[in-house]
Amino acid sequence: MNEGTKNDALHLAQLCAKELYQRDAATQHLGIELLHSAPGESLVKMMVKDYMVQGHKTCHGGYLFALADSAFAFACNTYNKPTVALGCSIDYVAPAFEGDELAAKCIEKSRGGRTGNYDVEIRNQKDQLIAIFHGKSYQVKGEILSQEMLKND
Amino acid sequence: MNEGTKNDALHLAQLCAKELYQRDAATQHLGIELLHSAPGESLVKMMVKDYMVQGHKTCHGGYLFALADSAFAFACNTYNKPTVALGCSIDYVAPAFEGDELAAKCIEKSRGGRTGNYDVEIRNQKDQLIAIFHGKSYQVKGEILSQEMLKND
Amino acid sequence: MNEGTKNDALHLAQLCAKELYQRDAATQHLGIELLHSAPGESLVKMMVKDYMVQGHKTCHGGYLFALADSAFAFACNTYNKPTVALGCSIDYVAPAFEGDELAAKCIEKSRGGRTGNYDVEIRNQKDQLIAIFHGKSYQVKGEILSQEMLKND
Amino acid sequence: MNEGTKNDALHLAQLCAKELYQRDAATQHLGIELLHSAPGESLVKMMVKDYMVQGHKTCHGGYLFALADSAFAFACNTYNKPTVALGCSIDYVAPAFEGDELAAKCIEKSRGGRTGNYDVEIRNQKDQLIAIFHGKSYQVKGEILSQEMLKND
Repeated sequence: MNEGTKNDALHLAQLCAKELYQRDAATQHLGIELLHSAPGESLVKMMVKDYMVQGHKTCHGGYLFALADSAFAFACNTYNKPTVALGCSIDYVAPAFEGDELAAKCIEKSRGGRTGNYDVEIRNQKDQLIAIFHGKSYQVKGEILSQEMLKND
Repeated sequence: MNEGTKNDALHLAQLCAKELYQRDAATQHLGIELLHSAPGESLVKMMVKDYMVQGHKTCHGGYLFALADSAFAFACNTYNKPTVALGCSIDYVAPAFEGDELAAKCIEKSRGGRTGNYDVEIRNQKDQLIAIFHGKSYQVKGEILSQEMLKND
Repeated sequence: MNEGTKNDALHLAQLCAKELYQRDAATQHLGIELLHSAPGESLVKMMVKDYMVQGHKTCHGGYLFALADSAFAFACNTYNKPTVALGCSIDYVAPAFEGDELAAKCIEKSRGGRTGNYDVEIRNQKDQLIAIFHGKSYQVKGEILSQEMLKND
Repeated sequence: MNEGTKNDALHLAQLCAKELYQRDAATQHLGIELLHSAPGESLVKMMVKDYMVQGHKTCHGGYLFALADSAFAFACNTYNKPTVALGCSIDYVAPAFEGDELAAKCIEKSRGGRTGNYDVEIRNQKDQLIAIFHGKSYQVKGEILSQEMLKND
């Protein structure tokens, strides 16, 4: 890939992530911020709020999962092909507490045919590993950004 | 197990689930209702709200996961032993939409030593399968209900 | 589905499983027997041999996985559409020992579009649960049995 | 950790892996070679043999799993604490064929309390990614190498 193509791919990735973020009420509602996107990659952030804490006084797994899942969604949708999750798994390493600032970084392990594999790490403000997540993606028909939208960019 | 012991186990399961639900701001915040609990079992319900919908206009996987994860937490905490998740996986079968009434039913596949395996099915108001979930539990030290709490019951 | 169509589907499932078994040197080499097949279902059996035992003196997880994976492959290939695994998970419940007779039963949880979800339980000769397995399938192009093969049946 | 302690940990890891390999008929039977071990790490190799090929003419998932599982077992047993698998998952990226030389490299993602998380990548002789694997470990009682064995080393 030459520099020009690389820049185009990066630019497209960022446009896709931005567009998806705007449409995504769920991610916005959780206070998740999109910090970085590139082809097959993303970095998102979320603070653990009081309503995210469960009966053991640690962050409910559902919110850790939601954070990782958002990172995964942004990363696998960077090629302008709408891509959904087939399935995901999460492994909890250490608890997160109210007030923690969590960062979730997603990288692409593979992409071929219609499917892909993505890994996410969630770390807290001390860079401690909180959870690891794996997502399997499936590319559906259509485009995220229409030709019109791309032209006007 | 004789009838009396069975009734005791059922009663304890219901007390544990009720107690955990009260402590669990995250589950309450999501509008999840606890409909049934028994040793190793639970049934919970959640309506898909507008803020739960993501960029593809279907329920964000994080909220489906949170629902299943709550069902799992209630089911594995029915023996008065605080039990946490080691890891979970979810497989998406069909999309859920805003306004859908989702039920998540958890059953125990195994429990031995400190660990256990639990399966959850999420179905919508038409009894369509939306997602399947697997959780692996780990029993930590302590008790959910103190002897005092159990006496006063 | 009427009785006739149901019988046809069952017959096709059995032909597919039989054909796949004949082509499958790996499954035969492990001494895995195919006991039952129906649309989306299978039952296979394997004895734990001396060479399957690892350093902890129990059956190597790879052989438990191979047994479950074979059950999964037979079950998801019962519609005359070649179907491969995208990914699988296994959870170990109890150890298996040399000489144990293990049965793996696969059922279909969902099938739609090109993908499907399948659950397998491995049980020993005392009907104790040894492991639970989940497989995600992906249908590729082509047919298992050609029209010619189906005509000559 | 100072140089001396680091060397001791590396030496112990190598002794544990060597001991486990000698006891492990299953791994030896598959022709798996142990190329490298260090605390929380391992590298193993296996050639895809004719009997490992299934009905689609590619390596049976069970053998890919067995290779990754062996890498995982060596890596999580490097601290002289007998450690077993609670559960594992594998995601298939590309098929492997008869004659392929597969390498499986395991790294430790986390270890704390009695449990740990490990990732394995399987690559072929062209360094193509074939499968990714995740294992969850559980430390049981006892020691791999007795004090006697360690003294005589």
